[in-house]
Amino acid sequence: MSQAVPKPVTQLIEAFSRLPGIGPKTASRLTYYLLRAPDELSQTLATAIADLKAKTRTCSVCYNITEDDPCAICRDENRDSSTIVVVEEPLDVLAVERTGAYQGRYHVLHGAISPVEGIGPEDLKIRELVARVSAGGVREVIIATNPGIEGDATAMYLQRQLAPTGVKITRLARGLPTGGDLEYVDSVTLLRALQGRHEM
Amino acid sequence: MSQAVPKPVTQLIEAFSRLPGIGPKTASRLTYYLLRAPDELSQTLATAIADLKAKTRTCSVCYNITEDDPCAICRDENRDSSTIVVVEEPLDVLAVERTGAYQGRYHVLHGAISPVEGIGPEDLKIRELVARVSAGGVREVIIATNPGIEGDATAMYLQRQLAPTGVKITRLARGLPTGGDLEYVDSVTLLRALQGRHEM
Repeated sequence: MSQAVPKPVTQLIEAFSRLPGIGPKTASRLTYYLLRAPDELSQTLATAIADLKAKTRTCSVCYNITEDDPCAICRDENRDSSTIVVVEEPLDVLAVERTGAYQGRYHVLHGAISPVEGIGPEDLKIRELVARVSAGGVREVIIATNPGIEGDATAMYLQRQLAPTGVKITRLARGLPTGGDLEYVDSVTLLRALQGRHEM
Repeated sequence: MSQAVPKPVTQLIEAFSRLPGIGPKTASRLTYYLLRAPDELSQTLATAIADLKAKTRTCSVCYNITEDDPCAICRDENRDSSTIVVVEEPLDVLAVERTGAYQGRYHVLHGAISPVEGIGPEDLKIRELVARVSAGGVREVIIATNPGIEGDATAMYLQRQLAPTGVKITRLARGLPTGGDLEYVDSVTLLRALQGRHEM
């Protein structure tokens, strides 16, 4: 950029531009907004970003993002530990929680099988899920991967891996819009898909 | 939020939501993106935000944002110090620089007169501009405040304050779209407005 832009400004514009959905124009607006805003906002934001990874980890049971291990859901005695909803991402846990209709546990795969992106089963928390189910006490595994090609492939793979354990395996009803992304689905649609789940 | 969201995640979502144009949904996407992204991105972003205010100041001559004081433009001997373009915000300096047609200096007011928002002339760098012009060596002041009610009011006020100094006072030609925002104007329109500036 020109001599009108000091380096710390350029650096923050470049850093913001690396976030998804934020182009150079938005990045520059955000940066100049922070310059005008009270110091407290910059401090809060910088601290929150630094804390995000430093103060969170993945739960050793369900692999959701958590502050304490095991996470609050895995520690909650009031939740049914015999049912596990399997999702691709931590945000998907939030989507299911928002239905208010599920009182069991979760398992976060951290992705879906995608040959195109070079993501195989070994890159996901699938071995950990099979071990968790094999350890006993689980009655039903509800597969809630995204209703698209990769989510379906992942569901099929999970079904084959879990079959030997004899656990009941279900998949969310295909009331979900095919090709969509679980976290954007409205709560009512997701609630109906949960209620209409079918055995694989 | 629910027990599925650890506090460091909530805190960053809330911090991002305080930025302009970023709602809770986008804030949450950005936060979970950072969780998945390499640590280096969070570190770069946190450092850049912390550095932004720590390593920048306003130039004591033109009040643009700068790393060193005076700023690179005010120090540049090749730039014509007898012409001053007066703008509302630092981003407006960038917009004028992008025309490539201006080789003088700047003065950043840091806002416009706005009775609605309670911003009076004493809240802007107007006294400093008058002092700068009164000190001599300035032949022309080009007022480039935004082409709207507040920018026009500010221009009128500046014209009255600067008149006693006898300096030539011009305003950008009204080829600019009225009600618009200077930093969004394309370079060609801005270049024409610069060329067609008229005496007040």
